[in-house]
Amino acid sequence: MSMTSLQDLFTHHMKDIYYAEKKLLKALPKMAKKASEPRLRSAFEEHVQQTEEHVRRLEQVFEQMGEKAKSEKCEAIDGIVKEGDGLMSEAKGGEALDAGLIAAAQAAEHYEIARYGTLAAWARMLDMPEAQKILHKTLEEERQTDEKLTGLAMEQVNRKAA
Amino acid sequence: MSMTSLQDLFTHHMKDIYYAEKKLLKALPKMAKKASEPRLRSAFEEHVQQTEEHVRRLEQVFEQMGEKAKSEKCEAIDGIVKEGDGLMSEAKGGEALDAGLIAAAQAAEHYEIARYGTLAAWARMLDMPEAQKILHKTLEEERQTDEKLTGLAMEQVNRKAA
Repeated sequence: MSMTSLQDLFTHHMKDIYYAEKKLLKALPKMAKKASEPRLRSAFEEHVQQTEEHVRRLEQVFEQMGEKAKSEKCEAIDGIVKEGDGLMSEAKGGEALDAGLIAAAQAAEHYEIARYGTLAAWARMLDMPEAQKILHKTLEEERQTDEKLTGLAMEQVNRKAA
Repeated sequence: MSMTSLQDLFTHHMKDIYYAEKKLLKALPKMAKKASEPRLRSAFEEHVQQTEEHVRRLEQVFEQMGEKAKSEKCEAIDGIVKEGDGLMSEAKGGEALDAGLIAAAQAAEHYEIARYGTLAAWARMLDMPEAQKILHKTLEEERQTDEKLTGLAMEQVNRKAA
């Protein structure tokens, strides 16, 4: 694909994050099922609902761009999800599995934080205030999810230390 | 590889981030050469030095673990670097290229922030205070680099808006 203008870049990264959100929508329920700590399980379950909303918001932005919502393969998120899958098939459950699930989820969250941060800045440069607002809202929610996961990881650290 | 204990997970993720840092060590000088904004170019150049130091610190942690420093292929960082490469070969220079370079670099930074955050927490669980300190130091530096890149992106946004 051609990426010679900022508009091209914006469109490309929109398709990239749309792919990533849909990929996570498939991965998260599996992660929820595998989690042994109930609070981690419910955090994943809640995040499924949130991810569905993020997909809808991206579709709104595509609509504002006058384009059909489309995915473009994102190897970064594929790599992160593949690593999570490997972990789920190898770890036998308990502490290591939960720790690994949190790590995989946080890698995905940080990918999204980077992408939404970039897209919101570009929407501003492209004079798309509505899109900027929507993208920024999702960015804040991804940051909150990351913090929640850090909290769950820290509880695990503290339990282990106790 | 087997990932049944937290120690296994820690070792696996150490190899993953060691691979990622070395991959970025090769990618960053190319990104510096392509950047058109002088401050962005020097930010990438400085980050090469910093990345070399991060590699050395990881080697210290491997030593503390009584293991030889080893890489393990990380598809997430491969995907991020590949996307940056595609951009550099397609964007003709100027605004879109710089914006795309910042986006690629921030995706890489966020991957590292997620990984170092996880590794520092696990080092604490595994009762490795020295390793935890080293990993946390790098984590803080990656966060600072990400903030510096956000600052450069925002300047670009503001210039564009002016």
